[in-house]
Amino acid sequence: MPKVMIAQNILAANETLAQGLRQDLTAQDIHSINLMSAPGAGKTTLLERTIERLREQLNIAVIEGDIETSADAERIEAAGAPTVQINTRGACHLEAHMLRDALANINLVWVQLLFVENIGNLVCPSTWDLGEDLRIVVVSTSEGDDKPAKYPQMFATSQVMIINKLDLLPFVDYDVAKVRREATAINPHLQIFEISCRTGEGLNEWCEWLLTFARQRDLSPTSSS
Amino acid sequence: MPKVMIAQNILAANETLAQGLRQDLTAQDIHSINLMSAPGAGKTTLLERTIERLREQLNIAVIEGDIETSADAERIEAAGAPTVQINTRGACHLEAHMLRDALANINLVWVQLLFVENIGNLVCPSTWDLGEDLRIVVVSTSEGDDKPAKYPQMFATSQVMIINKLDLLPFVDYDVAKVRREATAINPHLQIFEISCRTGEGLNEWCEWLLTFARQRDLSPTSSS
Repeated sequence: MPKVMIAQNILAANETLAQGLRQDLTAQDIHSINLMSAPGAGKTTLLERTIERLREQLNIAVIEGDIETSADAERIEAAGAPTVQINTRGACHLEAHMLRDALANINLVWVQLLFVENIGNLVCPSTWDLGEDLRIVVVSTSEGDDKPAKYPQMFATSQVMIINKLDLLPFVDYDVAKVRREATAINPHLQIFEISCRTGEGLNEWCEWLLTFARQRDLSPTSSS
Repeated sequence: MPKVMIAQNILAANETLAQGLRQDLTAQDIHSINLMSAPGAGKTTLLERTIERLREQLNIAVIEGDIETSADAERIEAAGAPTVQINTRGACHLEAHMLRDALANINLVWVQLLFVENIGNLVCPSTWDLGEDLRIVVVSTSEGDDKPAKYPQMFATSQVMIINKLDLLPFVDYDVAKVRREATAINPHLQIFEISCRTGEGLNEWCEWLLTFARQRDLSPTSSS
């Protein structure tokens, strides 16, 4: 069945490239995070708030993945981090070769923490290893509390889940406890943060944790999906 | 380049099947709608509210696409419409052959309007013709006002855009006029509705329009992407 065989070849080639990127980044003592979510859950805003708070303590660079536009990269640059924009021109996820090409445009000697903001998509990005040390999935209280159950692969392959838009809780039907329960049923090791990028709630705890992660030595690479 | 060739073959096979489905449905005087959005924009809730209001006037059936779970199908059944659940087990969009198999489980003689709720994904479903007469994209005020610019293909191939969650406007940064402007720049013929499934705002206008659409004769099929 040629379709499946070729898909496997593409995934295998991606995996090889991703492992190489992981080794290169680790050798340079750069910690990397693949940031994923549905469209509009707040990845870019989370990066803005995080960079504003940590830029004096940590050298953060960002690779921005979008199908079109460089609007997000401009926002991140304004927040104070060097940024490279990838436009996939229709593709629904980032792949390792895109990251490799983007990294060629960053002065890596300076970088301690590298964020890769993936395409807004709760499905496809979960299958593609980018060579990251850590995968984070962002969900938001306005998108319904059924997302772990309906998109389990994303939660199974992430190490961290951030529940964003806590400030909207009074105005939506969203059961935080249910989301925590259903997500940890899929992935018992999931580290969970509850935040609001709008009010700042939970951002101190998140930033402290991130600082510890970024300064950690001897990072054991996560296994890919 | 085998990857692209096979991708084209799969899309061409889907297109052929979709055209057949379109002819079959049209011959049975069934109007069909492909309902698409990002995860959590409110497709299922929109269907619930629509079915509750129109079930005495119109025979509506629903095909529910989800990666996992039958939770949405249960909600739609409870609202009063016969429903068939498709679980794609990982796949990020519906394809015409899935719809063909689902239709075998519906008593089509009774149906006047068929909704197909696609996987929550603003990217991949836009490429796959399901034989529908109409494509509707749902966006919500809590997911940011940059979605048309960042996911243009979805807006280029839809005939209707519904802006949902108007009730959250006081609590989020969302410029409705910007969304309307950027969406119609991509697709000048887009029909736009502004609604809140929570408060009911805009639902009368939407349901009246839908009733007219469903009772329309001699529907010219939309061209596929």
